[in-house]
Order: sequence, then structure tokens, then C-alpha cells
Amino acid sequence: MKSFLFQQATVIPMCGAEDAPRAFTGSVAVEGNRIAWVSADETLAHAFLQTHPDCRVVDCRGKVVMPGLINTHCHAAMTLQRSHADDIALMEWLNDYIWPFEAKQTADEIALGMTLGIVEMLLGGVTSFVDMYFQEHRCVEVVERLGIRALLGCSYFDHSIEIALADARKTQEAAASCSRIGAAIAPHAPYTVSEENLVRGKRFAEEHGLPLMIHAAETQDEMRYVREKYGCTPVQLLDRLGLLDERTIAAHCVWVDAEDRRTLAERGVTVSHNVQSNMKISSGAAPVAAMVAEGVTVTLATDGPCSNNDLDMWEEMRSAAFLQKLSTANPLVLPAYEVLKMATANGARAMGAAEGELGVLRAGALADLIVIDLQKPHLQPVHDVVSNLVYCGKASDVETVMVDGRLVVENRQIAGLDLADLYCRVQAAADRIKQA
Amino acid sequence: MKSFLFQQATVIPMCGAEDAPRAFTGSVAVEGNRIAWVSADETLAHAFLQTHPDCRVVDCRGKVVMPGLINTHCHAAMTLQRSHADDIALMEWLNDYIWPFEAKQTADEIALGMTLGIVEMLLGGVTSFVDMYFQEHRCVEVVERLGIRALLGCSYFDHSIEIALADARKTQEAAASCSRIGAAIAPHAPYTVSEENLVRGKRFAEEHGLPLMIHAAETQDEMRYVREKYGCTPVQLLDRLGLLDERTIAAHCVWVDAEDRRTLAERGVTVSHNVQSNMKISSGAAPVAAMVAEGVTVTLATDGPCSNNDLDMWEEMRSAAFLQKLSTANPLVLPAYEVLKMATANGARAMGAAEGELGVLRAGALADLIVIDLQKPHLQPVHDVVSNLVYCGKASDVETVMVDGRLVVENRQIAGLDLADLYCRVQAAADRIKQA
Repeated sequence: MKSFLFQQATVIPMCGAEDAPRAFTGSVAVEGNRIAWVSADETLAHAFLQTHPDCRVVDCRGKVVMPGLINTHCHAAMTLQRSHADDIALMEWLNDYIWPFEAKQTADEIALGMTLGIVEMLLGGVTSFVDMYFQEHRCVEVVERLGIRALLGCSYFDHSIEIALADARKTQEAAASCSRIGAAIAPHAPYTVSEENLVRGKRFAEEHGLPLMIHAAETQDEMRYVREKYGCTPVQLLDRLGLLDERTIAAHCVWVDAEDRRTLAERGVTVSHNVQSNMKISSGAAPVAAMVAEGVTVTLATDGPCSNNDLDMWEEMRSAAFLQKLSTANPLVLPAYEVLKMATANGARAMGAAEGELGVLRAGALADLIVIDLQKPHLQPVHDVVSNLVYCGKASDVETVMVDGRLVVENRQIAGLDLADLYCRVQAAADRIKQA
Repeated sequence: MKSFLFQQATVIPMCGAEDAPRAFTGSVAVEGNRIAWVSADETLAHAFLQTHPDCRVVDCRGKVVMPGLINTHCHAAMTLQRSHADDIALMEWLNDYIWPFEAKQTADEIALGMTLGIVEMLLGGVTSFVDMYFQEHRCVEVVERLGIRALLGCSYFDHSIEIALADARKTQEAAASCSRIGAAIAPHAPYTVSEENLVRGKRFAEEHGLPLMIHAAETQDEMRYVREKYGCTPVQLLDRLGLLDERTIAAHCVWVDAEDRRTLAERGVTVSHNVQSNMKISSGAAPVAAMVAEGVTVTLATDGPCSNNDLDMWEEMRSAAFLQKLSTANPLVLPAYEVLKMATANGARAMGAAEGELGVLRAGALADLIVIDLQKPHLQPVHDVVSNLVYCGKASDVETVMVDGRLVVENRQIAGLDLADLYCRVQAAADRIKQA
């Protein structure tokens, strides 16, 4: 069994007692795909080295070791359409650009876009992501090979539910042998999927033991549509149909009133906050501080690379804090540590992990962690390392990434990957689809 | 005279006819501190190499060459206080953290903080910045040595006007031999400086041929204070006192009504938009789209590293676009090219450059330019290179930086600078001041 010792790091465990220090100098030991222990006691490190002579030591002086980031909502394959169409009104954007492009892309091209998205996320310290798209079963091999952890949500509109249910079955089957990969069912939204098909998706999820994810309460247009058709809010509609529980991820939740928030908290729904997407598409400012205060589990996400236009969780953390301070006119809300928790420990909920099993550094947790190099001008001096990371940290500061006990990024490189070749193939695919 | 040829780049000149392509494949030639020519015609490049046998050729295949970024408002020395105090109410922040810290720092420590700030900016593609702080004359040597272009604004409250006027004289004198450095006078704000001292600053600026910069209309508290004391808005007060003209930089301008905006446009004031600071401190969302539409020159800036917490203009570009789309509920406003213009060509106005002399790539302009490596996962594929840069570009994508015809950053390194030593000294200074 492989073992690692991340030694003399600034450790940010993202767990432990409320009054425990949020960062301390110490080491993290890994055995197999689990964290063996996390400790400030150097004698433990010495003992570990003696009992594990083949242990790989990672010198972390001047570096942070923390849980990997968890991106709880994206459409990773849409990297192919990154900056394909910006600064355009929504319906023109969808009708003239996004949908025609999607209609022409092959499953292989989707897997290629997914590859680029995963590479971008891994290099930026994302160790787990929740995806929502089509042909997810064709992407299992890519996820498995690149070593990231993923929940692949098979998305549908009314006309494509059969395809999505088949996709979910195939994804579950293809991923059966890989503990890092799970399947999910993903009705698109309350305004694009009928009541009947929303319920059908949920039943399917229950039958197959899958989580369900859905876009909800994203825009004012959606609110009006659902109010006119159903006489309630999207959250209340989904609740009435039985779609909301602890295995549900609701993306966006920009327009949720006090009753909606109470429902989300009571049902144990995981909310995925996509702040930069909400800003760029003019959706609105979600009441994140209120949700957090009222006990809703809020996580962070990038949304797709068409509406952001990248998969950078560092920017999401910063923007989530900044926008909330602005929209509530209160600079005290969403302090740095709370935001970091949303991007790590809270995100683990979306991945279906048990409490303390993912998104934290503690004995027994899955070994998903990242090493951040603090020797950068924008991360110096260090008064408060959590503030530095959340307010100044960048994807490019991530040096090493471990997922499930395996080093997938070392010295900012993914071993065995020819990036130049990948970029060529991605550009060729994007050009082909546009010209088709 | 040294010469350079940036060859086979994706050139984004940020100037030229409205209907000209915004990016094209071509070369940029530099002689001395000026751009010799910019052209898509490869025969020109070949001829230049023949007439300039000592010319240094920079291979820019797969890379962008564009004007350097211009940060029009910051307090660079405050890097020493980066993440010193976050998520705290404004008055507690100032009274218990920022001001006590500043009272204890020496001029050498200010110069050290300035050094770190300049290093961060240069590595992120900032070729010019406008500073506003104390002891600016003690920073001239640092600016000169590191090779960036700077306008150093000597800031004052009522009690410190004499010190600031002396600082401005000394800064002007110390910078006399360096065309890259200018001095400015900087009354702090309409709510912290009396009418008399505002006017005195402006007279001093006129006598010495200096620009004037001031924080204005930043918060609702300021609006109330000025309304109660003077019965008008900060912009109207400054206009009545004669402070607003083409040599004025007004930082923030968050709370400017239609009349204020008309005044700013008519007087030719340069507005410095500090979007991330405005968000983090809960100041508000400036009406940038309205200002642009009404003819105000809007530029971008980071503000100090205490309220941001970095000096990253890429994040400012992105946040400026995103917040404006959100606050106006219109995804069409502030398209990517407009934002890039704010960060380059518009910013040149703040530096006192003549039209077309800075912030653009054209024959005769000052040779301040940056090379961006597009071979990054978050910048692929390329559908629209301007969108990619504004919505996905990062400080770490900047590979090469030229200021005034001199290569100050090559391969992401500043030659001759010991970064590890700098970080040690910065940390020691920050620790000393906190413990003093």
C-alpha cells in the first residue's frame, strides 16, 4: 500500500472544534486512499517514516496542505464552447450559438471537451466535481484515467428523458468498478421539464440509488413562468413533487424566499451557488448569507465554461464573498473561512460522502488534498493564511494535487499528458463543429 | 538603440478603426522606448531584421501581444497589511488595525511594501500604476529600479497637508531624471479634507504642473456627510471648488447621479473604477455602463491590497464586467473589449499620456506591452481571444512584460530579484510593526 507524508506544512484541516486553530504547522500522512493522521506532533512523523520506509515524503515548508476543492455544478464538456458567444442576450445565445453547437457535436468531442475541463480543474486544485450534461457514460473512461473524483449527472429535457435514463444506467454500469465515479440523474429545470418527467426522474433515482440534481430558481423569468403555471415557487413545486431530500443538489437557488430557504434546510438539500455565472448572465445575487444562517448546506461551483468562462474555484470563492458583502451591504458576512468551507467540507455533501469522509483532513477521510505554494508575491506576507487563500489565492498557486491517495498533479504537471496535442485536438473539434 | 521584434503573435492593438479586426496575426517592432510599427505584413518583419541585425526576436506563436495593463488607483505599499484584517466593520478596521499599523511603519518599510506591490503587479502584466500614499519620494528609487511606470500621488488629510506638499515636491525632484515616474497631489477625500485644503491641493498641483487624485463618492456614509455639510454631492462639491478637470483622477465614483456623471464627462475627469474593493467593503455598484455611455473616461484599478486583497487587474476586468451585467440586469453591457479598453487605452489618460501615446500598440507609442501565453487549459480553445483574455485570463498567464522598451519580466521572472529574500524581509517588517 502506497504511503505519503506531507511534512512541515501549514495545515488547514477544515474540521475540528470551533475553537481549534484553523491553521497549524504539522504533517499529513496518507496510506492507500485514506488519510492516516493529521498532526502537529513531529514525533508522529518520525515514527511514520520508520514504519513506512517506502513512504514518499513531500516537503511542504512554506506551503499549505488543505482539502481539495469541490466544484458542485458544472458542464465540463462545454469547454469546447468557451468564449464561443459572450455579451449576448440569453435567448439569442441559446438559439443561435449554444444549442446549434451542441446539436452537432459527437460523443467523442464531448469526451474531449470533458478532458480539457478536467485538466483545467485538476491544475486549479479541484479534486471532485459534479457534472450535468449529455453522454456522460462516454466520459467515464476520461474521468477514470485522469484520476479526478466525479459525480456525473445525466441531464434531460422532456424530449430527451429516455436517452438520459439510459445514459444514467450506462454511466452507473461503466463506473461500477471505480469508487471515485458516481452517476446521477439530472432533470434540467422546473421550467423545462414537466411535472410528470420531474417525478419520473426522482423515481428512477430512488430505484437505482442515485442522487438527483437540477437547476432551480435561477432567473426571474423562471420565477414568473413557474408562478404562472403552478402558482408557486420552483422550490415549492419541487418539494410538492417529492424531489427535495438529502440526495438532491439544487443549482443556483438565486431567487429563494424565506419559505423556500426553510424548505431547503428542512429537506437537507445541497445548494450549489454559482456566483460568477449568476453575475455574467445577470441572474441575480443569491441570498447566501441568509441560507447559511438558516442552516442550508451551501456549496460553490463554476457552472459551465460558457457562462463564466472558466472552471476556477478560487475565483468563485472570492466572488462569492465579495458579492455577498455587496448585496447585503454588510462587509462582515461570509468571512473567508466560511467560504473555504463551502468550497471543501460542504461540497463533500454534494458528492454523497458521509460526514467527515471527504473535504476535510482527518484520520480516515479520503485522501483528496492539495498543496499550495505560498511563495508568491500575492500571498505574502502571511497575516492570516485563510484570508490570503480566499482573497488572493489563484489556481496557478496549486502545486500538487492528490485524489484518492494518488498524486495526479505534481509540480503543476499532469504526468503523461501531452497538453499541446490536447489543445490542438480541442481547437480542431471546436472549428469542425462550428463549420459543420 | 536596442530593438525588439515580437513576431507572429496574436496582436491586440487596442486602437485603430472601429471596424478593424480587434486581433490579428502579426508582429510588433520596438526601437528604443517606442513602438516602431505594428503590422500583419511579414515582409516588414523580414526587412526590420535586416536593418536591425542586433534585434532581439521574441517568438510569439501561440501567444498574445497587447498593451500592458494600467492600474489607475492603488496603495501599493499596503501589501504589508495584506489580509491583516478582513471581514471586519469599517471603523473597527481602520481604528484598530489599519491606522495603528500605519502609524508604526517606517519609510523604509513603506518602500519595502511598495517593492512587493510592484513585483506582484509586474508579474501580472501591469506596466503602469497610479499610487496614493505617504512617503512617495522614498519610493522613487524602487520604482526606478524595478522598471515599472508610475504616477505617485502624495496623499493628505487636513493634519498632514504640509507633509504631503513637501513629499510631492521631493517626489517630483527625485523623479525628474526618469521619464517613467511622475508625482501627483492627492487630497484623501471630500469628507476627510476641508474645502480650504482641497483648494490648496489643487493650487499646488497647478503651480507645479501636477495631476490631482482623490477618492470621491465611494460610500453612502460619505454621501450623507457631504450632503449634510455642503448640501450637495461630493462630485458637485469638488466641481464647485475647481478640482475637476482633465488632470483629475477621481477614484471610486460609486454614487454618481446623472448630473454628477455629466459633470465628470464635461470636465474630462478620469474615473478610476475599483470594483472588487467596492464589493468587499460593501460600498456599492458604480454605474459604469452609464458613465461609459455618457462619455466619462472610466479606467480600472485594484485599490489597496487591504481591501481586495491583491493587485490583480485580470480579476478587476472580470469583476467589472460581471458586476455591471448583474447590477444593470443586462448581460449585454460592458462587453469584453470595452473592459479591456478600460484597463489599457483608457488607463493611459490617468497616466497623463497624450492620445495614442500609451496603452495602445501603434507606431510611435511608448513600448509598454505584455506577452500572454495562450497554451493554458483555461484559454483553450480560442473562439474569441478578447473574450478569453477578459473572462478567463489570469495574472499567471503573463509571460513577458516590457516597459518603456525594456524587458522587465521574462519567462515570468524579474531578473536580478531574490524573491525569497524579499518575502523574508516583508514578513519580518509586517511582524515588527504589529508587535511594536
